[in-house]
Amino acid sequence: MTATRTETDSFGPLEVPADRYWGAQTQRSIMNFPIGWEKQPVAIVRALGVIKQACAMANKDRGKLDAERADAIIAAAAEVVAGKLDDHFPLVVWQTGSGTQSNMNANEVIGNRAIEILGGTIGSKDPVHPNDHCNMGQSSNDTFPTAMHIAVATTAHDILLPGLAKLHAALAQKQQEFGDIIKIGRTHTMDATPLTLGQEFSGYTHQVAMGIRRIKAVLPAIYELAQGGTAVGTGLNTPKGWGETVAKNMADITNLPFVTAPNKFEALAAHDALVEMSGALKTVAASLYKIAADIRMLGSGPRCGLGELMLPENEPGSSIMPGKVNPTQVEALTQVCAHVMGNDAAVGFAGSQGHFELNVMKPMMAYNVLQSMQLIGDAAVAFTDNCVAGIQADKTRIEKLMRESLMLVTALAPTIGYDNATTVAKTAHKNGTTLKEEAIKLGFVDDATFEKVVRPEDMIGPK
Amino acid sequence: MTATRTETDSFGPLEVPADRYWGAQTQRSIMNFPIGWEKQPVAIVRALGVIKQACAMANKDRGKLDAERADAIIAAAAEVVAGKLDDHFPLVVWQTGSGTQSNMNANEVIGNRAIEILGGTIGSKDPVHPNDHCNMGQSSNDTFPTAMHIAVATTAHDILLPGLAKLHAALAQKQQEFGDIIKIGRTHTMDATPLTLGQEFSGYTHQVAMGIRRIKAVLPAIYELAQGGTAVGTGLNTPKGWGETVAKNMADITNLPFVTAPNKFEALAAHDALVEMSGALKTVAASLYKIAADIRMLGSGPRCGLGELMLPENEPGSSIMPGKVNPTQVEALTQVCAHVMGNDAAVGFAGSQGHFELNVMKPMMAYNVLQSMQLIGDAAVAFTDNCVAGIQADKTRIEKLMRESLMLVTALAPTIGYDNATTVAKTAHKNGTTLKEEAIKLGFVDDATFEKVVRPEDMIGPK
Amino acid sequence: MTATRTETDSFGPLEVPADRYWGAQTQRSIMNFPIGWEKQPVAIVRALGVIKQACAMANKDRGKLDAERADAIIAAAAEVVAGKLDDHFPLVVWQTGSGTQSNMNANEVIGNRAIEILGGTIGSKDPVHPNDHCNMGQSSNDTFPTAMHIAVATTAHDILLPGLAKLHAALAQKQQEFGDIIKIGRTHTMDATPLTLGQEFSGYTHQVAMGIRRIKAVLPAIYELAQGGTAVGTGLNTPKGWGETVAKNMADITNLPFVTAPNKFEALAAHDALVEMSGALKTVAASLYKIAADIRMLGSGPRCGLGELMLPENEPGSSIMPGKVNPTQVEALTQVCAHVMGNDAAVGFAGSQGHFELNVMKPMMAYNVLQSMQLIGDAAVAFTDNCVAGIQADKTRIEKLMRESLMLVTALAPTIGYDNATTVAKTAHKNGTTLKEEAIKLGFVDDATFEKVVRPEDMIGPK
Amino acid sequence: MTATRTETDSFGPLEVPADRYWGAQTQRSIMNFPIGWEKQPVAIVRALGVIKQACAMANKDRGKLDAERADAIIAAAAEVVAGKLDDHFPLVVWQTGSGTQSNMNANEVIGNRAIEILGGTIGSKDPVHPNDHCNMGQSSNDTFPTAMHIAVATTAHDILLPGLAKLHAALAQKQQEFGDIIKIGRTHTMDATPLTLGQEFSGYTHQVAMGIRRIKAVLPAIYELAQGGTAVGTGLNTPKGWGETVAKNMADITNLPFVTAPNKFEALAAHDALVEMSGALKTVAASLYKIAADIRMLGSGPRCGLGELMLPENEPGSSIMPGKVNPTQVEALTQVCAHVMGNDAAVGFAGSQGHFELNVMKPMMAYNVLQSMQLIGDAAVAFTDNCVAGIQADKTRIEKLMRESLMLVTALAPTIGYDNATTVAKTAHKNGTTLKEEAIKLGFVDDATFEKVVRPEDMIGPK
Repeated sequence: MTATRTETDSFGPLEVPADRYWGAQTQRSIMNFPIGWEKQPVAIVRALGVIKQACAMANKDRGKLDAERADAIIAAAAEVVAGKLDDHFPLVVWQTGSGTQSNMNANEVIGNRAIEILGGTIGSKDPVHPNDHCNMGQSSNDTFPTAMHIAVATTAHDILLPGLAKLHAALAQKQQEFGDIIKIGRTHTMDATPLTLGQEFSGYTHQVAMGIRRIKAVLPAIYELAQGGTAVGTGLNTPKGWGETVAKNMADITNLPFVTAPNKFEALAAHDALVEMSGALKTVAASLYKIAADIRMLGSGPRCGLGELMLPENEPGSSIMPGKVNPTQVEALTQVCAHVMGNDAAVGFAGSQGHFELNVMKPMMAYNVLQSMQLIGDAAVAFTDNCVAGIQADKTRIEKLMRESLMLVTALAPTIGYDNATTVAKTAHKNGTTLKEEAIKLGFVDDATFEKVVRPEDMIGPK
Repeated sequence: MTATRTETDSFGPLEVPADRYWGAQTQRSIMNFPIGWEKQPVAIVRALGVIKQACAMANKDRGKLDAERADAIIAAAAEVVAGKLDDHFPLVVWQTGSGTQSNMNANEVIGNRAIEILGGTIGSKDPVHPNDHCNMGQSSNDTFPTAMHIAVATTAHDILLPGLAKLHAALAQKQQEFGDIIKIGRTHTMDATPLTLGQEFSGYTHQVAMGIRRIKAVLPAIYELAQGGTAVGTGLNTPKGWGETVAKNMADITNLPFVTAPNKFEALAAHDALVEMSGALKTVAASLYKIAADIRMLGSGPRCGLGELMLPENEPGSSIMPGKVNPTQVEALTQVCAHVMGNDAAVGFAGSQGHFELNVMKPMMAYNVLQSMQLIGDAAVAFTDNCVAGIQADKTRIEKLMRESLMLVTALAPTIGYDNATTVAKTAHKNGTTLKEEAIKLGFVDDATFEKVVRPEDMIGPK
Repeated sequence: MTATRTETDSFGPLEVPADRYWGAQTQRSIMNFPIGWEKQPVAIVRALGVIKQACAMANKDRGKLDAERADAIIAAAAEVVAGKLDDHFPLVVWQTGSGTQSNMNANEVIGNRAIEILGGTIGSKDPVHPNDHCNMGQSSNDTFPTAMHIAVATTAHDILLPGLAKLHAALAQKQQEFGDIIKIGRTHTMDATPLTLGQEFSGYTHQVAMGIRRIKAVLPAIYELAQGGTAVGTGLNTPKGWGETVAKNMADITNLPFVTAPNKFEALAAHDALVEMSGALKTVAASLYKIAADIRMLGSGPRCGLGELMLPENEPGSSIMPGKVNPTQVEALTQVCAHVMGNDAAVGFAGSQGHFELNVMKPMMAYNVLQSMQLIGDAAVAFTDNCVAGIQADKTRIEKLMRESLMLVTALAPTIGYDNATTVAKTAHKNGTTLKEEAIKLGFVDDATFEKVVRPEDMIGPK
Repeated sequence: MTATRTETDSFGPLEVPADRYWGAQTQRSIMNFPIGWEKQPVAIVRALGVIKQACAMANKDRGKLDAERADAIIAAAAEVVAGKLDDHFPLVVWQTGSGTQSNMNANEVIGNRAIEILGGTIGSKDPVHPNDHCNMGQSSNDTFPTAMHIAVATTAHDILLPGLAKLHAALAQKQQEFGDIIKIGRTHTMDATPLTLGQEFSGYTHQVAMGIRRIKAVLPAIYELAQGGTAVGTGLNTPKGWGETVAKNMADITNLPFVTAPNKFEALAAHDALVEMSGALKTVAASLYKIAADIRMLGSGPRCGLGELMLPENEPGSSIMPGKVNPTQVEALTQVCAHVMGNDAAVGFAGSQGHFELNVMKPMMAYNVLQSMQLIGDAAVAFTDNCVAGIQADKTRIEKLMRESLMLVTALAPTIGYDNATTVAKTAHKNGTTLKEEAIKLGFVDDATFEKVVRPEDMIGPK
């Protein structure tokens, strides 16, 4: 049996674990929503800390809250921001659609911790009350969407963008390293005209560079915070300029350029900025899927696949097949990308389902967007460290495949004509011979001409 | 300038094209909904014909409608069923969410055509009135969902299932034809232990067989018809037994086992049966995508890919590369499959959005499901005729790849141990030699033992 | 610092926590895949226990494994099945796409626990080896998909179906309880003809009944197990009849009707059965969304909404608005439903992405399907207990709204004609009066006739 | 029987309709891809005209093409751009994934029309050859993605953005018109504190303004054209600077700021810019769905719904219920939005599926994105013209509901305390009385105080 203490809300008293700061509303949510495995993401919890800290600062500055209470709240909230109280946020995603219960969780934890700091009795709501003091000038309806935006912005800067930047750098390095390796191109998965392996990787590098640009392009709408709209967007019970003040405080705390949202009605009733961010994440997922799938297939083999790339071996591949190595990092990344696509579908749906002054799919939308960001960021790092950085080109095989390709005949066409070139290619294909053998045998060119004309190194750019 | 005549509805008179049977409500819909390119599918139009015919028969039998009017309506409706009046159904998908306007389109066209049959003046609503006679005992709210189900069922039987059956037969034929060809297996896209090409195709065959079973498994819910629920599901303004009677008539007309829905409130307010069908279609799409993608990759080359299969050449592949052939049927099919996945997302969303006694996403849901069925059915036929039926195995290359594979070492493991087998495989990989060379050189086996033990034909099943 | 011991795999030695049973391959996966928050679901872990137990039993029966080792493995596996070793399965979802590392996690944990049971040294692989003994006759490629199916089937029976059954019973109870309450119908969200509140709930009840039927209808494909296919589906390294034997053992252990899959190539390379299940889950989600959204809107108010239903009050609704109560259970459920739709999109995509003999999106597909099942099951229970069971009808308001409705004029139409009825309705609408007032004032009927004809209780069914 | 003429390609001769300009490759595509109803969108056809015109101009300028041929091609292509030859583009979406066949359709039609202009024999390929002259310096692999981007950009400017701008203006007008109407706010669909109807509409206006900004923000990536990459992205067979030259020509022809893509490998092998655009379209769809759904619910009634708005009546609503009017424009728009969400899922999937140097889901991706743009643009116009522009506020009912709301008690809380305010609200709710009655009866305030404190007009903003 765990020791408990009694906490109360307007529905009555409840026992909560004695070693936890949360109060009755949090406990009631645990009881009423025993749904699933998914806790509120840590990024949301810490963002709530940022908000409570920023608002207490503003309330202190405006003389709404005495310095003693304010400073205790600020200190307690700072502990939430620093991650010291993560274990005191037990609620699941699947709760009130406004996130009210997680907002109250923050109010209760910060309130009790502030009471403790001030030497009071936890659970007494004195001298710090979760609603009257911690939630002063706030409503869940503006607080939770603000937390969503702060969490998304910090996750973008802390996890997503660094992960993508790392991947980008590794791909750019490979692009350069592989700059001189001429290989067969493939269109429709069929042999085509040559390019360099560096050119091939340049496409990947560019995709990731654009992905970073896409994420950054949608961040400004994320920096716009709902705080100050209170219950329905009007800002009832806030002083004039409140939204601007608290947004500035939040910007100061996080070092991110948060501003107050220009229209609070939209900021509470819709989460289009999250839908937009999710669309950008989906685009990045599509890019990464393509890159990873190419690398997998180019590394397929070792004997019976394409075999142009050699991927790092990170773990035993098979208990039944000795010596087997698998592209496991590709598999983790592609699973992540497919999952992000699903998250995006969920976010788009949820984003459309607001009613009147409030969208009540908030926790679920935040969860999906934050999960997508975390997964892409993490997987980009693992994929870079454990795969991309160690990719080697099998130059011998690349050269062999490229030389055997019938599509080099394209270079011959201007000299002997498209129709004759077709004959050469089809004959070589039929006989399993080389283009050169057949081109000479058919009498279209001599050896010297063939060697002069069919030069892959002349086929990799405009002339 | 097209000649026109005047038609009227309760909102007033409107000019309609003189050579068309439709009336004022149809014309008003054309004016109010100039949205997109997507017409109501022909299958919906013809299903509305079935309904009007079935109801007129029932109204005649019950003495609600005199024989002269009834027979004229039945004859006109039969023309709709037969596709003779397709050009008289101009409305787009993006209209009233109950499909009311398409129901009125059917009432107006059949009414005017019946008037014509009876020698009356088109547009006069005399002696046949679109509402009073053609729509007797019906509401759009039960008629349109009935049309949706009839259209889906007929499209399943006429297009989707025959297409899948054709593909199944062709794959089964290839499974048999390729039964003796032993090839390298690939897991994680990497070389693995062998199987026969017939076994590989047996997976495809089984997928399609299961797909057919999946479609058939969800048809019973489609056979349940909303007709008889009228405005809100209560059956107001219908006689007792009406739902059963008209369902039977519709079954007789179409030769499909339609029955009346057991709960009409559900049948108007939700379209779960379409969501379920869409899920089955999505499953089939996933199957076909996998099959097509495998065939594409196994046919990649001709020199620089896997090259195990030779796909039929149906058209010139490239204007710039002589002799290029592309897996174009695979590309058409995979595009269809991806599109079907999108349709499914749309259908699921729409299915959740009913309000109270009516779901008003009806035309859009029907459009997406019917499009998915048509596309899969058509693409399965084209893929079969122009690709699967003509696939040939490149036995020489398949044999060569299989023989070179290092994963045959798996057969050696019981004799020389897993660790020694690993050494053999890794040494051969490093040196670019064969397993046999290295196994003998390393002193683990002699030639005869190797030949006796490493037999791909013994590796393709349990012992 | 945590105490560690040394474990080894073919890539070398690694330190693992001394108080955990896992070995080097598990530890290596922790190091190589630091991605996201999502652990392999417990249902997968326990299903792996079922498999290891069933295979050890079969290996013992066939004399492949001596009784001592077999019994120790069986005992250790039984502890996994019973959930005693959940803490020894630390791996995340985002790993090798074949689930190899989770399979090895099970082999290592069971192997070490069996060693412990037999008095050996943990980490020595003696006398029980994770591969040679725990994995005997198995490959990750058939084991993990088997675990997926077992986990899905058990979650269906333990969580999903009971949750839906509970919701169904509560809705059926309300359907009966509300059977005599006549209310206004609403189509297009606009006032329509009446029905009973019981009829309205009967639609919901039927939807859930059908949802249960849908889940059950797709379970047979889930009962088909891949075990016996080993590496590529051929069953290499298994004795004849192995698949049948182990499926029977698994059926005995779980009391579920598992059978061996008829085509093992399909069972490894595709997961269509999971895609199909996901489609069924999506259909259930669409149903529940509609039901929950209706209940929310019917309970909207208390003064400015529809106000026909009174939902239970479970927690304080607002810190800023005294006395506010919100439909929070509806919000949890609708968030779940939207999330399930996203999962379905991810699963469909992943299901299409198999290559050759293996689909390597396995852990992600299992995660999404299991999450959907858990969420729907849990949310159905919470929604039932905390909302549906306590719903009350506001009979006074329902009666008032219904009496005021202009659509009762529909009953008057047969007596005074459709056009006159329209005039009555439009005049009453314009003047804000009652139908009766205007019908009499306009001279169409007298009081007695109106009372006799306009009887809502006669409008709720066929005549 | 239609008259035909003989056309040939490298696969042999084929009969084509005599009154059509297309050639053998187009005809072969008709034969090989009898799939579905969906033709290549007109925007793609005309974009191909732009490309052919721009390239012929460049080839003429660089002396690659003599003036006579060039001018004839330019003239013929201009007819395609002008829409005069739409009927000569019969191909469906479901064809080669590179769009090769539609590119050849353009080459053949323009070639034959140019021959006609020059007095030659159609079908003779003399003096204008579809490949050698019309396709000079081009490959389908760079031409079709260029056409996709041009079509998307022109559709954005011609249809999508004007439609959204029109809707934005109408909403802004209503925002102003409704600026002084104070109404009840609703959160969680429950009564909340008041706001003005203008404020509520300001949220909608802002959403659409942001939607326009979102579309414009992703256009720059669309302006980047693949042309010049030819077969695999290297630009083989183009002169230096070709990409820049033809992009400039296309910009001149269309008056849109097209530029050459900075990385042609990405531009052929991925279509991330379309995925990104689709994400923006999905975001707009989510916005519009929310707006439309709110308007529908606020207009619900006329007697038994919320009844705050009166929507225009555009057509008869029901054949069975006299006087019924339905929010049909809302229904068309919400169906469009749901469909766009599905399209987005399809586009994301397809975007991830490129292989090596080419993504072969091109026609399907273009179709979905263009359809989404067309549908949103068209539906925005219809919704504006036939709904938004005519919305009227029912001021009487709005005032009545607002006055009755218990949530005005929020204004009383600072004076009498939160707990007493709760008592007032709950008592009034229980007794069906007004806040004022109960507040006075309970002795918390007198009449004058109540009137002074509870002033909705003071609750609609910060103080």
